[in-house]
Amino acid sequence: MNSIRDKVAVIGVGCSRFGENFDLSYEDMIVDATYEAYKDAGIDPKDIQAAWLGTVNPEIGSLADPLRLFDIPITRVENYCASGLDAFRNGCLAVASGMYDIALVVGAEKMRDSPPNDTLVASVYHHSHPLLNKGMSYIGFFGMCANVYREKYGLSEETLARVAVKSHHNGALNPRAFFQREIDVKTVMDSPMMAHPLRLLHCAPVTDGAAAAIITRKELAKNFRNDYVLVKGLGMSVSTGFNINFNPNYDFLTFRSTQIAAKSAYEQAGIKDPRKEISFAEVHDCFSITEILNYENLGFCGPGEGKRFIDEGVASLEGDLPVNPSGGLKSFGHPIGASGVRMIYEITKQLQGKCGPRQVKNAKLGLAHNLGGTGIAVGVTILGNQ
Amino acid sequence: MNSIRDKVAVIGVGCSRFGENFDLSYEDMIVDATYEAYKDAGIDPKDIQAAWLGTVNPEIGSLADPLRLFDIPITRVENYCASGLDAFRNGCLAVASGMYDIALVVGAEKMRDSPPNDTLVASVYHHSHPLLNKGMSYIGFFGMCANVYREKYGLSEETLARVAVKSHHNGALNPRAFFQREIDVKTVMDSPMMAHPLRLLHCAPVTDGAAAAIITRKELAKNFRNDYVLVKGLGMSVSTGFNINFNPNYDFLTFRSTQIAAKSAYEQAGIKDPRKEISFAEVHDCFSITEILNYENLGFCGPGEGKRFIDEGVASLEGDLPVNPSGGLKSFGHPIGASGVRMIYEITKQLQGKCGPRQVKNAKLGLAHNLGGTGIAVGVTILGNQ
Repeated sequence: MNSIRDKVAVIGVGCSRFGENFDLSYEDMIVDATYEAYKDAGIDPKDIQAAWLGTVNPEIGSLADPLRLFDIPITRVENYCASGLDAFRNGCLAVASGMYDIALVVGAEKMRDSPPNDTLVASVYHHSHPLLNKGMSYIGFFGMCANVYREKYGLSEETLARVAVKSHHNGALNPRAFFQREIDVKTVMDSPMMAHPLRLLHCAPVTDGAAAAIITRKELAKNFRNDYVLVKGLGMSVSTGFNINFNPNYDFLTFRSTQIAAKSAYEQAGIKDPRKEISFAEVHDCFSITEILNYENLGFCGPGEGKRFIDEGVASLEGDLPVNPSGGLKSFGHPIGASGVRMIYEITKQLQGKCGPRQVKNAKLGLAHNLGGTGIAVGVTILGNQ
Repeated sequence: MNSIRDKVAVIGVGCSRFGENFDLSYEDMIVDATYEAYKDAGIDPKDIQAAWLGTVNPEIGSLADPLRLFDIPITRVENYCASGLDAFRNGCLAVASGMYDIALVVGAEKMRDSPPNDTLVASVYHHSHPLLNKGMSYIGFFGMCANVYREKYGLSEETLARVAVKSHHNGALNPRAFFQREIDVKTVMDSPMMAHPLRLLHCAPVTDGAAAAIITRKELAKNFRNDYVLVKGLGMSVSTGFNINFNPNYDFLTFRSTQIAAKSAYEQAGIKDPRKEISFAEVHDCFSITEILNYENLGFCGPGEGKRFIDEGVASLEGDLPVNPSGGLKSFGHPIGASGVRMIYEITKQLQGKCGPRQVKNAKLGLAHNLGGTGIAVGVTILGNQ
């Protein structure tokens, strides 16, 4: 197994306010996140030697103009909802190659405002998404997952609702989150049904936001700060929509790309038992059922055991394996290309012990999990303390 | 200057037929190019550990399904018309990092067929391209460049026409080119005026096509073939559209991103004098004037001297510094995301001495130059023999 373990360090992170940012443009949010990361790393914009932008829209995206970041290489990466972590992966590999000393990775998405014809929202809902125009929607797909889980393993509506309750509990402690308020089980269960058994409050919101990370080679990191964080593993796997969406034998419980990306990241990081070694995780909870399935597909527990993470509090802020201390996609928000980099932001801050009331205990190894499409493109990134 | 010189080798290349491929889908062309590259490298599809796709459209592109290439990382890269070389750069950096032993880079674009609302062609011509909706078109911009050049240095219509004549001469020797026929100066000068002084036959055609390259670390390359080609330099620079298009002081002769990307690539490759050391080049001749300006901006000659490359035959197949032996964008065609990887195909085949009637003499170091937008994103890649 090839690995770039401990070759690349995160020396600065930044994150815009997430939410319905009608007062902020796409470019404004990129500036907010990136200048916070510059400041956090203690660098000047001219120190950046290369940059990556993870975004799904606009089709022709630019970091150069909003950041006045000229005369360096800048690459736009698109990988469905996993664009953020994939931009981070490409940046880390380039730094590990020795080509660039200091690089910037930004994830950003503007999803509110009225969508013109050629935006992501329009393309998914009105045009010809290669999978979704067959009559399937994302929530319809994940609703089927939830129904299969209920049938096979049993899953009460209360347990499913508690995933969202946990997210909102954590998000209420997070000053950048979209929804900074607690909700209770009854509120979730009283919210409108979207695709049985998923209700409105089981769904991550449509969000505006941007996040940024500054990376360098490990040898250079101590020149910038003492509490830099190291990249331990960079897993990524793309499978096929056809296997999932149009495969009559698909089990609606297994996300093969999550399993493969996690296995790769664990091997790279030298992790034998993720249940014991991972301190906390930020996972892709686009819907509440997805978070439960993520526990299982990431190997945190066996099939059918994911619901126990909720019922027994394992995944809560004070639990043995806190998941989504940030509030997750559900409460922090999910601006597509931004989410993966936002996870890097949260994990870095947690590993540095800077998360205040939402700080997890004994943060040594943090896992980020970013899932694209109906699970067809998945990134799993592991960061750790030195 | 950091460099990954001689760390990465090209061990296989492939290229679909370029042209109006109404009989081939986007996916068909990707399969044609990639399976030729697999065969050329002598590898099996399962040997690929990671892949990059350079494409501008579709917005959500996939290599996985057409190639049945599952359970590995696949990243889509978009960087205007330089998407192909930027995908190649990202693949090379990842291989140089040690993370992947064998990687695939594909460039592809489907530009003919009737464009639906959300395609590239539609977005550029009908919607809201960030620069072009101010009333400027690509050919309008490059027409202004040609007028400024004529005013400042003098440039006859015959010389400008001879750029296209040279391209078609080379393309006529190339069985994959879009236009495999010679044209003469009179034909160019009689073709319809598009944006003075640029006529129809000064313009690269709207084209379908795909190209592929297989890369590995140098140490592994000899396991696949003896005549592998080495990556010497990977320059890339993004500047600003505002500097060029809306800057009242812009000189319409200088492509800063070309100059910076070339300087970077030369330094990485240890090239002191490109005029003497580069054996041949594939440059981004989207319009005939662009090719002349490229000579100057790449440092092949001084300002105002580019026209001599045409008048004195320096850039012709038998000249001292042959440019676009493939036929270039003008005759081979220009499927946006494919062109950069297609240049890698041509340079690799030239360095291996496999180009038959269009073979250049003493091919030791070849340069690829891929220009995006109105010169705002430029890749310069240098390949060489061992």
